[in-house]
Amino acid sequence: MIGVPARPPLDWESMKFAFLPKPWDQPVAELEAAGHTHVALEDNPDLLLFRGGPEHFPERLPESVKVVQVCYAGVEALVEAGTLAAHDVRWANAAGLYDDTVAESTLALLLAVLHRHKAVSREWNNLELFTSTRYLFDSTRLALIGAGGIGATLISYLAPFGVEVTAVNRSGRPVEGAARTLAMSDPEFPALWGEADVFVLLAPLTEETRHIVGADALAQMRSNAVVINVGRGPLVDTEALADALEEGRIAGAGLDVTEPEPLPADHRLWDLDTCVITPHTANIPRYMKARIGGLALENWELFAAGERMRTEVEVERGY
Amino acid sequence: MIGVPARPPLDWESMKFAFLPKPWDQPVAELEAAGHTHVALEDNPDLLLFRGGPEHFPERLPESVKVVQVCYAGVEALVEAGTLAAHDVRWANAAGLYDDTVAESTLALLLAVLHRHKAVSREWNNLELFTSTRYLFDSTRLALIGAGGIGATLISYLAPFGVEVTAVNRSGRPVEGAARTLAMSDPEFPALWGEADVFVLLAPLTEETRHIVGADALAQMRSNAVVINVGRGPLVDTEALADALEEGRIAGAGLDVTEPEPLPADHRLWDLDTCVITPHTANIPRYMKARIGGLALENWELFAAGERMRTEVEVERGY
Repeated sequence: MIGVPARPPLDWESMKFAFLPKPWDQPVAELEAAGHTHVALEDNPDLLLFRGGPEHFPERLPESVKVVQVCYAGVEALVEAGTLAAHDVRWANAAGLYDDTVAESTLALLLAVLHRHKAVSREWNNLELFTSTRYLFDSTRLALIGAGGIGATLISYLAPFGVEVTAVNRSGRPVEGAARTLAMSDPEFPALWGEADVFVLLAPLTEETRHIVGADALAQMRSNAVVINVGRGPLVDTEALADALEEGRIAGAGLDVTEPEPLPADHRLWDLDTCVITPHTANIPRYMKARIGGLALENWELFAAGERMRTEVEVERGY
Repeated sequence: MIGVPARPPLDWESMKFAFLPKPWDQPVAELEAAGHTHVALEDNPDLLLFRGGPEHFPERLPESVKVVQVCYAGVEALVEAGTLAAHDVRWANAAGLYDDTVAESTLALLLAVLHRHKAVSREWNNLELFTSTRYLFDSTRLALIGAGGIGATLISYLAPFGVEVTAVNRSGRPVEGAARTLAMSDPEFPALWGEADVFVLLAPLTEETRHIVGADALAQMRSNAVVINVGRGPLVDTEALADALEEGRIAGAGLDVTEPEPLPADHRLWDLDTCVITPHTANIPRYMKARIGGLALENWELFAAGERMRTEVEVERGY
């Protein structure tokens, strides 16, 4: 790129922002209402809002750009493509903007699996249901693998049911509302696969967490175990899960994300009445559109004040 | 019946009980462990546990029987058949024994309807879902028609979602956790049909509540309204509900009870993806078997102490 313009004077209260690859009207209007100006990338924006994949990211950014606000939480595709490392800017993701949508979707999936909704087809007197319906309130031990903001909201939704939560996170720092918290590196962690009734997967996707629910973990699970994946598809080894469900080695699964995604229309998981699937709808664009403008403004003000942004991405760590 | 035996001396700590039409092992064992004796009806029981319909009830009871403990909550079939009026005994029902099972099933149905689970068939990218999925946490106004023990438990489950509950009961006595409580006779009650987003039906079946959700109420409902019936099938006019759903005048329904029941296999409600049906599984026998023994013991002790039983039925009122 030739002729990159000189860095403009910083005017925090009235900055310029671009929105790629295709802006959403609602956050643009919000930022403009706050006194900022929507411009093209060529017109030296201070802030870039970005909602595409690595292939949509500009090869070079104008020097004017100081912050990229990504409109989703999981930036691993940008990390893998080298996008984060290639640009000398600070990055923010959208973590926290769908704590409530994903937590509520998790509970909906979990209850649908426990209450055998998918087994109800056209038969009224399905006696099997009476024996296999399970209740969340009835002494459920739930392992929350990945316990950030979504997990905290989920814990609040689970509290009235008296669910006993074991939270698993990277640090082992106690999670509020959990009966105990384990670090993923804790020697006690592997025993959890044989202890919990429900596993909720909310971890970011890293080399440590890829296929964390695979043949090994599944082989240790109790026959009443239920796996809910609302994190990232590759947290689960899809074929190993399908085997365990088909053979009745575990009781059920609820999946909002899969590997591959979309799940092929002829995949055997669709036919299993112990497997409830929602097509990556736990986080829906409507709420992101309504909330990303406010987060971008908050992050911009923190950046301008010389502080760490609320959802700043640690580039080395990748989330 | 000839030769009804004389009333035996009351021995509260060691009474005799019968269990008709067919005893459950678990409560029988519990009552025997408490020092009581399981006998046939002919052997002058003090207490009768009863879990059948009116057609199973003995034509005459030995004079020894003082209390009939019914193993379900809704005794209207016994009222209609004249069974309650025909016998000079005190009656207890099983209200409260499935507050948690029914409340949890209600939330499961409600979330399945709001999150459009039934619309997910084999298509991954179901864009309609993104526009029509609704979230409980998002400013839901819920009308709870019939607010006893199940309602109280449901309110506790709804609390973390910030749902605004309007409780409707016979007395108008404020229900804990509800933003407001209306008596069914309150002149403000009819306006509720046009105000709430979700209607949960938990009322007992009386002449006042039969078809309370009929063509009139449905015509007043908002287009996003959802009806959940976990009370009694005839609270809803089934065909009026099916019309409203088919014509898209309301958003959805979740039914654990229907009129008629079972719902015929060829009924149009089964085919509507806005209607989630569970075959009367909100209250499952497993929990009733585990809990009725304890309730019968508690009621017997209250009766013996000359007190009102915890779940005593007011024969005139019918519940």
